[in-house]
Amino acid sequence: MKPTLKEKFRIQSYFDSVKPDLERVDKKMTQQVKAFDPNISGYVEYAVEHSGKRIRPALVLLTARASGSCKEGHLDLAVILELVHLATLVHDDILDNAGIRRGMPTMRAKWGSEISVLLGDCLFAHALKLCTRFDDLHIARMISAASNEVCTGEIIQTQRRFDLQISMDEYLKTIRMKTGALFRVSTELSAYLNGLRDEDLEAFSDFGDQLGTAYQIYDDCLDLLGEEQQIGKTLGTDLVKGKLTLPVLHMLRQLSGEEREKVSENLLQGESGDHFEIVNRVHESGGFSFAVRKAKELLAQADKSLESVESKKEVDVLRNITKAFGAHLGTLG
Amino acid sequence: MKPTLKEKFRIQSYFDSVKPDLERVDKKMTQQVKAFDPNISGYVEYAVEHSGKRIRPALVLLTARASGSCKEGHLDLAVILELVHLATLVHDDILDNAGIRRGMPTMRAKWGSEISVLLGDCLFAHALKLCTRFDDLHIARMISAASNEVCTGEIIQTQRRFDLQISMDEYLKTIRMKTGALFRVSTELSAYLNGLRDEDLEAFSDFGDQLGTAYQIYDDCLDLLGEEQQIGKTLGTDLVKGKLTLPVLHMLRQLSGEEREKVSENLLQGESGDHFEIVNRVHESGGFSFAVRKAKELLAQADKSLESVESKKEVDVLRNITKAFGAHLGTLG
Repeated sequence: MKPTLKEKFRIQSYFDSVKPDLERVDKKMTQQVKAFDPNISGYVEYAVEHSGKRIRPALVLLTARASGSCKEGHLDLAVILELVHLATLVHDDILDNAGIRRGMPTMRAKWGSEISVLLGDCLFAHALKLCTRFDDLHIARMISAASNEVCTGEIIQTQRRFDLQISMDEYLKTIRMKTGALFRVSTELSAYLNGLRDEDLEAFSDFGDQLGTAYQIYDDCLDLLGEEQQIGKTLGTDLVKGKLTLPVLHMLRQLSGEEREKVSENLLQGESGDHFEIVNRVHESGGFSFAVRKAKELLAQADKSLESVESKKEVDVLRNITKAFGAHLGTLG
Repeated sequence: MKPTLKEKFRIQSYFDSVKPDLERVDKKMTQQVKAFDPNISGYVEYAVEHSGKRIRPALVLLTARASGSCKEGHLDLAVILELVHLATLVHDDILDNAGIRRGMPTMRAKWGSEISVLLGDCLFAHALKLCTRFDDLHIARMISAASNEVCTGEIIQTQRRFDLQISMDEYLKTIRMKTGALFRVSTELSAYLNGLRDEDLEAFSDFGDQLGTAYQIYDDCLDLLGEEQQIGKTLGTDLVKGKLTLPVLHMLRQLSGEEREKVSENLLQGESGDHFEIVNRVHESGGFSFAVRKAKELLAQADKSLESVESKKEVDVLRNITKAFGAHLGTLG
């Protein structure tokens, strides 16, 4: 029987302590729509309103609190990082040929790949223009570097599609680039805006990196497990596209001989493969439990990263997330 | 008979006076390849070596000379603007489904749309990171705004495909955005780096804007007229994609009644239309002559823009281009 997902981790419920500021970020995002040419502001509005779970903005705001106080610059940083994230989502949906995200048609589905490629570019260009509002060039430098890293991670993932030889370390390195990088700048730059010392910045940077990587492992499990209406985006695209994620890589390691050959063949069929059968195999091989263990390990490391600053700062607002996320992962694995 | 192109305007031959500096720019571009992750540097190298005619770098260097002297910052600016341009080319080739550019396979043709979308993003992110090398935030702000404008122009063009009602003003506004914007920052920011006063900056800005717009009109004529081996990129994609350019818009204005209906039907067929017939009609209606007149007008305006600075600066290096370009256009129309 195909394992199903009981309940999705609602990371948003841990954002309550920064809810008023998140609402200000949302308002600022909506205001940014007006900064675009009237011919394209409709698309931007749709992207801003229907995409993005605001995880990166929330991390900026929570870290602002954890490292001092939330200033106007934190709100701007949150807007910028969410716009960069939206740009990558718009482009991702083209690559994944995705029709639905968060229960709504994707930009690609509504307006086609051409508009979507260009709109992603506009969002990204605008986000980087907003970086220049900070007198400090460090912000723009870190965000453009992280954006490059996100896309590089995605390229590597695309290169390694249907590559059954991919190692777990390579998988982890790739998701650290594609997801960890923006989480990392969310926490690091937020602490930076509060003027923290380099070693403390490193602690917040590591926290973001590890949380982001754990979150991507979880997201990859959801892609295999979930139901479209539950998750609100087109699911199971990873297997179709030959993206081999942690649970699948674990399963492949467990198999040998004829069995491995049979499963490999099934995996290599992509769209025409029997995904029910693959997910079942992943489950039987303990692939999901393995991925959950790895994600929990990363969350423990994220927690540990904050040890060096905990005596000085209110890091519990961030720890609450890793704690709850870890507990939820227990129900999955 | 379909009109043919006698000879292409070799804008590069007017770059001779800055050739040594252009070679330094090329060297710097090649060095930038190493700044990318080893997994993607091969693509970047291909993009850097096989795309881009270095028009924007040349404009930066020529303007540096016209407005003072060429400093290290001008070389960096030239690299950045060419990287932004390369990013847009990589994305354009996806949208146009183009197989060949400058006589070589496009990135899309070699590695597919997915890698190309992401690689364009990486190039763009890296270009904007390089902007932060300038202490002055104005550079990054202008370049990110111009990049947004380029993509917005392309979106508008995409929206208006197969729209026979598009006015000439709309066409001109669109190409001013998609091509004029990067030409404009090439000349304006180059003069800015030489510390010119605002009114002089405006003169160089206008020059770039008008030259870029004229160049795009010419490029659109080439798309209708040229032979693939002559121009070195897949030609005639505009009609296939329903992009109605100045010569075609002029022709439509000349026709009425049954004739207009017949041609409109042909245009709306896109890929399956008779392009030979359309180009012939454009020629007979004086569409090319009309476009050439408009381009020449813009070149005259570009020249005039420099009047206010000519007594103080060596603007002839720029004027040589508009003069020769204007003369060449005479042979076309």
